[in-house]
Amino acid sequence: MGRNAVICQSGGPTAVINASLAGVIERAQERSQIDRVLGAFHALEGIVDEQLADLTNLSASQLESLGSTPSAALGSSRDRPDPKYCERVLTSLRKHGIRYFFQIGGNDSAASASIVSRMAEAAGYELIAVHVPKTIDNDLPVTDHTPGFGSAARFVATGLAGEDLENRALPGVKINVVMGRHAGFLAAATALGKSREEDGPHLIFLPERPFSMDTFLTRIEDVYGRLGRCVVVAGQGIRDVDGVCWDEKVSARGAKDPHGNLEFSGTGRLCVFLADQVKENLTVRRLRADSYGYLQRSFPGLQSPVDRVEAHRCGRAAVDYACAEQRGSVAIRRTGTGADYSSELFLTEIDNVASQTRFMPDEFISEDGTGVTAAFVDYALPLVGELPSRFFLDPD
Amino acid sequence: MGRNAVICQSGGPTAVINASLAGVIERAQERSQIDRVLGAFHALEGIVDEQLADLTNLSASQLESLGSTPSAALGSSRDRPDPKYCERVLTSLRKHGIRYFFQIGGNDSAASASIVSRMAEAAGYELIAVHVPKTIDNDLPVTDHTPGFGSAARFVATGLAGEDLENRALPGVKINVVMGRHAGFLAAATALGKSREEDGPHLIFLPERPFSMDTFLTRIEDVYGRLGRCVVVAGQGIRDVDGVCWDEKVSARGAKDPHGNLEFSGTGRLCVFLADQVKENLTVRRLRADSYGYLQRSFPGLQSPVDRVEAHRCGRAAVDYACAEQRGSVAIRRTGTGADYSSELFLTEIDNVASQTRFMPDEFISEDGTGVTAAFVDYALPLVGELPSRFFLDPD
Repeated sequence: MGRNAVICQSGGPTAVINASLAGVIERAQERSQIDRVLGAFHALEGIVDEQLADLTNLSASQLESLGSTPSAALGSSRDRPDPKYCERVLTSLRKHGIRYFFQIGGNDSAASASIVSRMAEAAGYELIAVHVPKTIDNDLPVTDHTPGFGSAARFVATGLAGEDLENRALPGVKINVVMGRHAGFLAAATALGKSREEDGPHLIFLPERPFSMDTFLTRIEDVYGRLGRCVVVAGQGIRDVDGVCWDEKVSARGAKDPHGNLEFSGTGRLCVFLADQVKENLTVRRLRADSYGYLQRSFPGLQSPVDRVEAHRCGRAAVDYACAEQRGSVAIRRTGTGADYSSELFLTEIDNVASQTRFMPDEFISEDGTGVTAAFVDYALPLVGELPSRFFLDPD
Repeated sequence: MGRNAVICQSGGPTAVINASLAGVIERAQERSQIDRVLGAFHALEGIVDEQLADLTNLSASQLESLGSTPSAALGSSRDRPDPKYCERVLTSLRKHGIRYFFQIGGNDSAASASIVSRMAEAAGYELIAVHVPKTIDNDLPVTDHTPGFGSAARFVATGLAGEDLENRALPGVKINVVMGRHAGFLAAATALGKSREEDGPHLIFLPERPFSMDTFLTRIEDVYGRLGRCVVVAGQGIRDVDGVCWDEKVSARGAKDPHGNLEFSGTGRLCVFLADQVKENLTVRRLRADSYGYLQRSFPGLQSPVDRVEAHRCGRAAVDYACAEQRGSVAIRRTGTGADYSSELFLTEIDNVASQTRFMPDEFISEDGTGVTAAFVDYALPLVGELPSRFFLDPD
């Protein structure tokens, strides 16, 4: 039996997924049970095609640079392994003497890791698979929050604070579409930069609440009437009353990825549609709509400090669990709140996470369904770090 | 005759337009010729409607906070004054004892300042008007570059460096639409984060070169064929061979602002159109398109250090010119290049800038028309500041 480890990164990139990778490598270097640490490029594909890099001897300064670089340095994948593919994975794992398998990814990546783990078990191959969580959507169950969310939240909160200044300067209606396939955590995080009652975002439409065009237009009209401007955020995954994604309705595509997720249009089509609705139904001075796109998950130099540290710790902990022969998914438990924020890690069954989705709890969503509560701000702000301050001038 | 000053901010916001505002206020506080410094909200509208703030006593720390805040703290405007409106402006200027008029803005704002200045002269009113340049588009003549460009360039270069990492991780075709009404400086600046030959952006389509759909598709097909991925940048102002803006063709609007500029669709419509063309004509694995939108000009906390300093200096210099009874537009002359970058300020006639546009010179555009030259990088990099480093892993 080999004593080597392999690491995969899977699913959508984040600003700190490489911090987790650096954590795994660093701790594997320290642990004597592990001989060599290999990185597989584009996840399982890299194992099968033997697109591998030996990461055992990366220096501390290389790990530091790696950890500060967004996106997935090993490349990513959205493939889901079928039994035949798993056989090829196992063949390659055997060949390279792999005993420890680390999968850094979201709920679909956990599912892939679970499939490989079960296939290995069925084949009598003692593989220790540990899943390291990441996703900007923050929609994994069990864990208090996911590495990647804090940094993406930092980007959208910062960006929206700037959008709000822009909207004050040139008043009108501005619509911003923010990522979040199923859950609204990231759309909600755009509110974290608010410092005054009149600050935007004035309306946040979340996937957790049915999105009706009537409500959308009425609420905008109301805010615009009161303030002469309105900054709107819509989660990419907003659904109609029948649960159908507006993005799907608008793009008339309905294509699905191998995990059964709807592939979003990814072209700002939802933006254009929402802006057209406002244009056709309301009279407003200026109207603009932007989709935050990939910037929100891969903008360099904007990691949340807490997020960076936790992502790194999750990577290190995964190695310790593996060395203790414990399979599962690393999770975060909050042990201190507010200014005293702190957290600790624990292990959960990988199937508690695989293909599961967590949504925003009701207590985080305002009564009228288009804003967030103080409980949400208390929850999310420590994960984001200090935001740039803004200075306001008002007429005497 | 009064001894007061009024300041306006006009046109599209930038990350450092408030640094220029802080510079004007700070220097006006120091100069004994000026009694009070007023800020007019939403430019001339604030003068006419007396939406004014007395900024004379802002503290050094308030000026520091103001200077680090993006967008226009006094609000902005795209209005163009007609003679009747100018009369109302002059009436209010007289009432408030204004002798010094500072207009921080682009070429259209310079035109507005010029109109007010000439109207004042015709009325025998000794108004000293000084224009402080700003525009992220960098399309003003005379000056080496404009305050605001360096910070916007920093945002798009950083963002694109992240997009490129994302595209490496999940290969496909990614299209990004970047601001620039007439000139391609900002689209070109997306190349500043490139560190390796294979790095994106792989293709940059500039308003300075006719954009044909055939070339667009052929070039993407070529890059995708070679690298298995392609990161594309298109300037918002790209035009067809007849000089018609693609954004106008796509949105079928053609609405113009009071300065005669085409109002862009502002909804990602160009993105959707370009992505659809790729989808219909090429076979690629993943396809996404985003518009960088307002983030590129109002993202907090991302000022270029050089840009911030120069914007502030331009504001201070404007006051000194005004106190020396010199009317005009402040401009920047480069006095040192590369690592020894330095600059000095001078004054030019306001009509040399008003309503004039500068384009990318041929020497900044690569032979094939879809990239930038080393001369452009030498020109732009000192204005942007150091960019976040990236760490790469490759299969053994």
